[in-house]
Amino acid sequence: MRHFASESAESYAVGVVDVIRWDQFGLNDVLPFQAMWYTVPPLSSSPRDQHPELELSVVISGTASVETGGSTVDVAQGAAFLLDSEEAHVIHNRSAGVPLTIFTTFWMPNGKAQ
Amino acid sequence: MRHFASESAESYAVGVVDVIRWDQFGLNDVLPFQAMWYTVPPLSSSPRDQHPELELSVVISGTASVETGGSTVDVAQGAAFLLDSEEAHVIHNRSAGVPLTIFTTFWMPNGKAQ
Repeated sequence: MRHFASESAESYAVGVVDVIRWDQFGLNDVLPFQAMWYTVPPLSSSPRDQHPELELSVVISGTASVETGGSTVDVAQGAAFLLDSEEAHVIHNRSAGVPLTIFTTFWMPNGKAQ
Repeated sequence: MRHFASESAESYAVGVVDVIRWDQFGLNDVLPFQAMWYTVPPLSSSPRDQHPELELSVVISGTASVETGGSTVDVAQGAAFLLDSEEAHVIHNRSAGVPLTIFTTFWMPNGKAQ
């Protein structure tokens, strides 16, 4: 069994978002997807993102307000959302006090990890 | 964007464990893995499990005490653990009050979803 905790991992900033990519764990030949944790601070939003990979995200803490195609859906702690290939998205954290942390997996549309 | 919430999904019991398999969402041709949520009640344990699929789990709420090979590691809310193919495991919830909920992905060792 291998244990992965965000507290002991390397992170970097994408705008206001703190990102922990799983590349650092050397699992590229093991996982059929790539993965990351990211945290959006209170009253902040991720940069607009759009990419060929599909993306399945699970909300670890806080509530994600997921904006796609002009509408926004709130995704609660524990729930998940799937973004299609090339679907543009912005993730908002509308809480004044609770950071929004998400675990995301992503993969190319052919179903294989890159 | 598709939104998945455990509250509106079908679940079934495996011993004391409440399991919500993602098969019901019709994503088998989309995701490169299978997935489920499961909840271990306070002061309870999952049945011992062992299977060919590798398994990556993220703790959504509570703390998972993950027993493998005679040792147990506590995995906190937000952290993750990876089980190898055929690695026997029991997941304990040692809290008296907090349910343990986990989001799990699993796939065969060749890296493709079944």
